[in-house]
Amino acid sequence: MKPSRFATLLASGAASALFAVPPVHADEGMWTFDNFPAAKVNAEYGTDINQAWLDHVRGAAVRLSVGCSASTVSDYGLVLTNNHCVVGCAQNLSSSDDDYYTHGYTANGLSEERKCPGMNGEILMSISDVTNRVTAAGAGKSGSDLVKARNAVTSRIEEENCGDDPKWRCQVVNLYHGGQYKLYKYRRYSDVRLVFSPGVQTAFFGGDPDNFNFPRYDLDSAFVRLYENGKPVATPDHLVWNPAPPKAGEPVFVAGNPGGTDRQLTVSQLETQRDLTLPITALQLSELRGRLIRFSEESAEHKRIAQDLLFGLQNSYKVYFGRLFALKDESFMAKKQAEQTALRQKVAALGPKLPKDFGTPWQTIDTAQSSVKAMYLPYRFVEGGPMGSELFGYARELVRAAAEREKPSADRLPGYADADLPRLQKSLFDEVPVHADLEEVTLEFWLSKAREYLTADSPETKLLLGKESPESLAARLATSKLGDPAVRKALYDGGMAAIKASDDPMIQYALRIDPEARKLRSAWEEQVSGPLTTASEKIAKARFLALGDSIYPDATFTLRLSYGKIAGWTYRGTEVPPFTHFAGLYERATGHEPYKLDPRWIAAKDKLDLSTIFDISTTNDIIGGNSGSPLINAKGEAIGTVFDGNIHSLGGNYGYDAKLNRTVAVSAAAINEALRKVYGADAIADELTGKHKPS
Amino acid sequence: MKPSRFATLLASGAASALFAVPPVHADEGMWTFDNFPAAKVNAEYGTDINQAWLDHVRGAAVRLSVGCSASTVSDYGLVLTNNHCVVGCAQNLSSSDDDYYTHGYTANGLSEERKCPGMNGEILMSISDVTNRVTAAGAGKSGSDLVKARNAVTSRIEEENCGDDPKWRCQVVNLYHGGQYKLYKYRRYSDVRLVFSPGVQTAFFGGDPDNFNFPRYDLDSAFVRLYENGKPVATPDHLVWNPAPPKAGEPVFVAGNPGGTDRQLTVSQLETQRDLTLPITALQLSELRGRLIRFSEESAEHKRIAQDLLFGLQNSYKVYFGRLFALKDESFMAKKQAEQTALRQKVAALGPKLPKDFGTPWQTIDTAQSSVKAMYLPYRFVEGGPMGSELFGYARELVRAAAEREKPSADRLPGYADADLPRLQKSLFDEVPVHADLEEVTLEFWLSKAREYLTADSPETKLLLGKESPESLAARLATSKLGDPAVRKALYDGGMAAIKASDDPMIQYALRIDPEARKLRSAWEEQVSGPLTTASEKIAKARFLALGDSIYPDATFTLRLSYGKIAGWTYRGTEVPPFTHFAGLYERATGHEPYKLDPRWIAAKDKLDLSTIFDISTTNDIIGGNSGSPLINAKGEAIGTVFDGNIHSLGGNYGYDAKLNRTVAVSAAAINEALRKVYGADAIADELTGKHKPS
Repeated sequence: MKPSRFATLLASGAASALFAVPPVHADEGMWTFDNFPAAKVNAEYGTDINQAWLDHVRGAAVRLSVGCSASTVSDYGLVLTNNHCVVGCAQNLSSSDDDYYTHGYTANGLSEERKCPGMNGEILMSISDVTNRVTAAGAGKSGSDLVKARNAVTSRIEEENCGDDPKWRCQVVNLYHGGQYKLYKYRRYSDVRLVFSPGVQTAFFGGDPDNFNFPRYDLDSAFVRLYENGKPVATPDHLVWNPAPPKAGEPVFVAGNPGGTDRQLTVSQLETQRDLTLPITALQLSELRGRLIRFSEESAEHKRIAQDLLFGLQNSYKVYFGRLFALKDESFMAKKQAEQTALRQKVAALGPKLPKDFGTPWQTIDTAQSSVKAMYLPYRFVEGGPMGSELFGYARELVRAAAEREKPSADRLPGYADADLPRLQKSLFDEVPVHADLEEVTLEFWLSKAREYLTADSPETKLLLGKESPESLAARLATSKLGDPAVRKALYDGGMAAIKASDDPMIQYALRIDPEARKLRSAWEEQVSGPLTTASEKIAKARFLALGDSIYPDATFTLRLSYGKIAGWTYRGTEVPPFTHFAGLYERATGHEPYKLDPRWIAAKDKLDLSTIFDISTTNDIIGGNSGSPLINAKGEAIGTVFDGNIHSLGGNYGYDAKLNRTVAVSAAAINEALRKVYGADAIADELTGKHKPS
Repeated sequence: MKPSRFATLLASGAASALFAVPPVHADEGMWTFDNFPAAKVNAEYGTDINQAWLDHVRGAAVRLSVGCSASTVSDYGLVLTNNHCVVGCAQNLSSSDDDYYTHGYTANGLSEERKCPGMNGEILMSISDVTNRVTAAGAGKSGSDLVKARNAVTSRIEEENCGDDPKWRCQVVNLYHGGQYKLYKYRRYSDVRLVFSPGVQTAFFGGDPDNFNFPRYDLDSAFVRLYENGKPVATPDHLVWNPAPPKAGEPVFVAGNPGGTDRQLTVSQLETQRDLTLPITALQLSELRGRLIRFSEESAEHKRIAQDLLFGLQNSYKVYFGRLFALKDESFMAKKQAEQTALRQKVAALGPKLPKDFGTPWQTIDTAQSSVKAMYLPYRFVEGGPMGSELFGYARELVRAAAEREKPSADRLPGYADADLPRLQKSLFDEVPVHADLEEVTLEFWLSKAREYLTADSPETKLLLGKESPESLAARLATSKLGDPAVRKALYDGGMAAIKASDDPMIQYALRIDPEARKLRSAWEEQVSGPLTTASEKIAKARFLALGDSIYPDATFTLRLSYGKIAGWTYRGTEVPPFTHFAGLYERATGHEPYKLDPRWIAAKDKLDLSTIFDISTTNDIIGGNSGSPLINAKGEAIGTVFDGNIHSLGGNYGYDAKLNRTVAVSAAAINEALRKVYGADAIADELTGKHKPS
């Protein structure tokens, strides 16, 4: 359940929110580390969570740039995460001869640990409040001007605190939809190497059909290692590894980076998702999925090159499908409406305590929804660009970087300030294989859908297609040489002059459509993001006045801690137990993908303890982005890694249902048993228990 | 906009209805020929529609078994319809060497006219009322028993009036959702031959992107001929062909067979469509479309064999997409709710005039929606079967025919009574090419979606898949020999003994899943169709009591007449004129599919009168199934053939909007000009004007 590269498309329609009025439910919440309800949790679970515990866990929690979470688990920078968080890396390191995505990878010593292109790891070191400075910078401004002023002050704060030192990353985080702005300062590691992946047959046994289901039999775990100067890094902190069998009912914690939730959106914003953005997105993911499934069936090589993209796409499809049907539930929407009405009444009762310029923020948000409806399709296709095309992504970045770098740092688009350039350069210059065949599929799909949704006669379609067809244009653009990092570096270093002089078809294409894309972006800021920023901040502040701040903010892909216990659930009279065991894997196997066992597991069956606890269901409140998070016991030890939610958790984007929402993790016990008896990776297992120093 | 083979899947959720309360709008209505509002129309349009006019038009209107409409237009059984109504025939007559689907077909004399496999033509000869007999047969029954009793009386009436003479077809038609049952008696022609098709580049210029759009530049017309005993048939009536330029504002009529509308459904039924059946259907069509698009791109042969299926699928997708967004319009749903409330108040005011057993039919319909929600997915996948698989269709028919023919005629499932067997045999025995590659795609898709939607662990998935995967099972089923008509005939003739003894994998598969499919069908009758039949009839009768009968029934793929005028429309300030001309075709061409001109049109450009009126927009109220209907002037002459609606007409399933809904037709003038100057088909053009007898 990693947040795919497509999630950003949808997020654009969901830029603002307000807070739920009713009290937080048992085990609900993705809490910031500076506002964790430790007293409440300790009282409820008999735990002893204190500042030292929190600092220790925070210092071991890693955010991966692929949209995942992770944790350090050894003295030598070893990092535990999910297999599905490293499959992109495995894919990028693979060739027709060595398909690490499918067969996995076990490094035999440090010399075999291989750098994951483009991957960063970040550890949060401090949080400080910058609300007043951010808010002041936009005072008196609105629309696009407000968005620009906020971007500028954000860049300045980040630069002042981290400069352009690639070892640090500063990020101003918007919490409570503008209720707070906090500066998160991270220690950054830009050399992350693949140590161990079990391979997809075992990590994703049951494949798409079993995704978001439980009982589950997946070893969705992997290890990477943080390096600096060519050597493993001893990070300041790490979790103790505990492969003992976990117990039903024991309290557990998840420290990770939930990607985003929409629990505090207004009803009108949810309706926009239900009636516009979710159906359009799901329908398009569905067709692209169909094209890629057939593409994958054409040859082993097509299967190999499409597998990572197809996995992400199917995962996203299921997420959006779940969200769509969660919002179609009338009783759920009625509850949201009641919550909103109650909040508005409480806020109205504040009377003169409200700021004088409070105005009618809910109405502003409702009005902005009409703008979303009017602008969504052109914005999505022209500014959003194609789903899954690396070539277009590079071209867009290069064209924009060239234009933006000609401006003062604070005036640039987000992501192009001086402090952002090291990360941008890494993502542009790291070598990643690009496959023209696959590019052609994604580009043709994008162009044909643009024509379908915008109609053949729209100015945007004419801009995107010119006199060409989606098929012919996609074929032409796929001949781009931007797959070569040297070409990208030369274009980046050469700036706008090099861009303009380039005869690369994708560069020229991105350059040609950029003015219109920027225009749509500005219009979106003017009519959507800007008004939503202002209105949401007003609601957030009024809410703090009315209700206090003992509540958690919507998820923002920043570090959060959730609490709960190991537990199954009961649905329509059927009780689902909280554990699965290795034995169940062998029972579920059919010999056909995706229920086909890895030959290594068939060979190891007799050696394995088949009663080993495999996967775990817990009550923790998580969402996409939490993938790879450590599952932590009361002592602060790693007892597993979180890789999924159950099917009921798909509605978790909008609210937590204590009875049904469940987190799914793979146990440290299972990982330990598999490392030793299936993969012959005793060195890793021994490093985890402190008995081995890697060399 | 022919109703595709997929439409039936959706229609299953929409089996009942009630009537709109407000007065019919100008030009609204798909009127039966025994209840046409001639006086109103004559008053409004200054026309002289009388019984003779109506009889003449009825006698020339043809219903084609491919789900289309048509009309006789010569003394020798020549029939005008759409090209997209004969592309299935063209596809079936094609081979890798002769692709008539793409390049069209022009028969040079009768000897070159080629029989369309499986196609029938039917001309309506009489309508009689059988309401009392049908209603009485179900008295005191409910649920599945009611459905069975109704099926039995329907079969008996049809057999008594037409026997099993293949020259006649009798059909008991449910009008006003049970308000009336009428016996429609047709003269049936089972030898229909292809005379002329312009080819898809010209008939469907603009392809899917321009489908349901206007201005339009499509020669979507074709001719077939009715034969009996190897000779052209002189039908009792035919329309005079008038290729003179039509005039804006002139009154026009459309006689054809609108496939189905849902204008009289209750609000709860519309909500079920909006929230369940439409999104699920659209999402699945979307993915299958993606798979087939990629399949088509793999080779010229794949493109050729998939083109008819892909066309139908894309067309259906657009239809369902349009319906989905029509129902998402809150003001539209509010109007529907207000209409329903008004009707219920009027009915309540009837008091003692209502039958004693009136009960609470609206509530019954609401309750049945819960059953739809609970049963839809298993019913759809197991009883509905795969979209687009010919092999499964044959196997299902053969297995059911064998089982049903062992029962008395009146006890059989609909479609298997003695009177139905000639049509069933024709559809089973006519030779139609079956492509294993394409079958594998559709079967694999069906099985993988069944597993996805029903989950891997459901009993239905286990029934459908056994121990196999969707991929392996689809590959195995696609080896079936049912593509061979001789194999099908032997199995049909051999009855259940032959079916059970067959080692054909698809026969054995259909046989294995049939008990569960029948069980789901019975449960659906018990909890959905049965209750809806009873409740809808009650509402229908109460409505006649409250409001009289000056209203048209929902469409049922039976003959209707709609009236209107030639007119464009205005949308968001833009005026769309009612005509396009040949010149516009050349201007719109880009050289890339689907905007690529047929070489014959490039060659003929200088000879053509480029000011010829090409396509026409009219205010007539039509829907899918009306494709191929003649566009008729006040004198009863054919001045074109209807082939589409504009984009606003997609919501026409639920209501007619006089300002925006438009019918799109190709003019007789354009057909005449093209026949003579592009296709060298003077013989056909001369036959149309009575100057040539075909030989």
